[in-house]
Amino acid sequence: MPSRSPATSAARALRSVTVELGERAYPVEIGAGTLADVGARVAACTGARRAVVVTAPPVGRRYAARVLRSLRAAGLATARIDVPDGDASKSLRQLERLYHGLLAAGADRHSTLVALGGGVIGDLTGFAAATYLRGIPFVQVPTTVLAMVDASVGGKTGVNLPEGKNLVGAFHQPRLVAIDVETLRTLPRRERAAGFAEVVKKAAIWDAALFATLERDAEALLALDESALVPVLARAVEIKAEVVRRDEREADVRRLLNFGHTLAHAIEALTRYRGLLHGEAEFGLPTEPPAFPRSAYLAALQVDKKTQDSRIHYVVLAGVGSAHTVPLSPAQVAAALPTRPSRKERGAGRAARRGRR
Amino acid sequence: MPSRSPATSAARALRSVTVELGERAYPVEIGAGTLADVGARVAACTGARRAVVVTAPPVGRRYAARVLRSLRAAGLATARIDVPDGDASKSLRQLERLYHGLLAAGADRHSTLVALGGGVIGDLTGFAAATYLRGIPFVQVPTTVLAMVDASVGGKTGVNLPEGKNLVGAFHQPRLVAIDVETLRTLPRRERAAGFAEVVKKAAIWDAALFATLERDAEALLALDESALVPVLARAVEIKAEVVRRDEREADVRRLLNFGHTLAHAIEALTRYRGLLHGEAEFGLPTEPPAFPRSAYLAALQVDKKTQDSRIHYVVLAGVGSAHTVPLSPAQVAAALPTRPSRKERGAGRAARRGRR
Repeated sequence: MPSRSPATSAARALRSVTVELGERAYPVEIGAGTLADVGARVAACTGARRAVVVTAPPVGRRYAARVLRSLRAAGLATARIDVPDGDASKSLRQLERLYHGLLAAGADRHSTLVALGGGVIGDLTGFAAATYLRGIPFVQVPTTVLAMVDASVGGKTGVNLPEGKNLVGAFHQPRLVAIDVETLRTLPRRERAAGFAEVVKKAAIWDAALFATLERDAEALLALDESALVPVLARAVEIKAEVVRRDEREADVRRLLNFGHTLAHAIEALTRYRGLLHGEAEFGLPTEPPAFPRSAYLAALQVDKKTQDSRIHYVVLAGVGSAHTVPLSPAQVAAALPTRPSRKERGAGRAARRGRR
Repeated sequence: MPSRSPATSAARALRSVTVELGERAYPVEIGAGTLADVGARVAACTGARRAVVVTAPPVGRRYAARVLRSLRAAGLATARIDVPDGDASKSLRQLERLYHGLLAAGADRHSTLVALGGGVIGDLTGFAAATYLRGIPFVQVPTTVLAMVDASVGGKTGVNLPEGKNLVGAFHQPRLVAIDVETLRTLPRRERAAGFAEVVKKAAIWDAALFATLERDAEALLALDESALVPVLARAVEIKAEVVRRDEREADVRRLLNFGHTLAHAIEALTRYRGLLHGEAEFGLPTEPPAFPRSAYLAALQVDKKTQDSRIHYVVLAGVGSAHTVPLSPAQVAAALPTRPSRKERGAGRAARRGRR
């Protein structure tokens, strides 16, 4: 189990979870109002003399000045690089822009990057840190629920290619993950809900007690009640940290975290587990999987990088808090999906379906 | 010391040097005519089911068919990707092309890349392997002396940016380095000499006995006499492997390998060591450092990624086989260089110099 210890700070309700990875162990610190103190923590965890904050406009506009001020107060030289908002920024083009920006900012081996934003910023910045000068330190300052409990922990960094998501990347662990729950106040409610869905999934595969807490405290969590929020985020981070510790290189146990990732709702269709949909529904999420032609699902499954020898390691639940993987072919997955016929099949299949009904 | 053991093979004079890096240890196998058997070694060292050979036209035209045939004979599915010849290919643009080529070739996590060529191909292919799907195996099949004794060992991979060399990269160890000295027969004599200069440098920093061998066997080595060549290459690889083993992450001892790299001939100008120039002259290399304006040298030194706090870890020799580092500022380095005045200085300085002479 990762260690969990109360830490003292001027900020409220600070909790710290250590991701145990030997030499590369790092703390995930969770509190309220902690952005104002982040500079000293960055300095302590990286030993850097210069920090380059990478952010996207809406988040940067609200929080970058506070982070930069805190870094300067800790004695670091600072620079800020803005990346356009949105998924499209997780690209080789933005990565190249970022490299040029880092050189222009004078970033060297004694510099650290600070990713201030959601998963896109974290993944892009982390990959830049993994590869700039063959690797420099970086710090995650996630500002969405999803980035706090998922993307920030585990060291997966990378960018997308036009052919698919996360096809280029590296494992590069941050030196510190600094979570300030106050940044969630400006997060749209729909994004909050999507983030809590990830917590629900983690509870479903790992921790029935957390699942019960989520059912009980759903409203308080969506309202960002700190006394409910901080322990739930800390526990979700612990689960991810525990899985990462046990298998940093994504085989076996780490595959469990792919639960819901490979083809979102396809998993529910393949299992008899209904509680997850129930849990998600509480957080205001859709419960109906989208229907696409079978051929479209098959094509999407076959470019997924987790495909192994035409088998996909599907994560299924034996019950809440108890998951395992089953190797399935893309055809088996597609067969269980609520697909709609393609244009070609629609003509040919009409008579046959009438016969069956 | 890395272990060295004679290995049996149908090919002649095979020597194997193990680069000792714990879980990531790998063999460097040196022989003559071994390209024909490389497929079985790739299969054994990577466990891959598919191999994508990355090469540049002149080398690919001569050797790719042999390598691909050998891979297929070992039961691997194969593909070949050609990269344009020359330094310009060590770029983000070619890296992106390579990613697209890998996807088109169906490369997945059970595939390996095979870099067939010189240092540019090795560095580019190694970095693609480090980052494609967050890292897949790769094998180095170096075809220049320089790539055999330097670039192939140590796991440094990467590409250049317009602002400087090797500014983007990763440490990613190959699973196997397969050296066939017969590929050197088609290497231009000037490139052979440049490669042997690297061996001379390694001998100078590490091994006075090797240095003596190089002085004695220079002609036989340039003529690619196998009985002289294989042991010298094996010893040069051992030196690099030993330094890499002792400090994989390029501090302290590994800095010694920067000898001659940071500013080529500037080092000789800073030390009283003349034997190195003598050794290089035997391999038909220039012995006069180029004269540039001091300001140009200063600018070049200051974008070098090894600059630390405005200090450069210069490698100097106490004697043949005995090296250490000295921290120098770029200004101290430039002051010792045989610079010529810039256009601006030429006018102002003329009277002063007349006075001194």
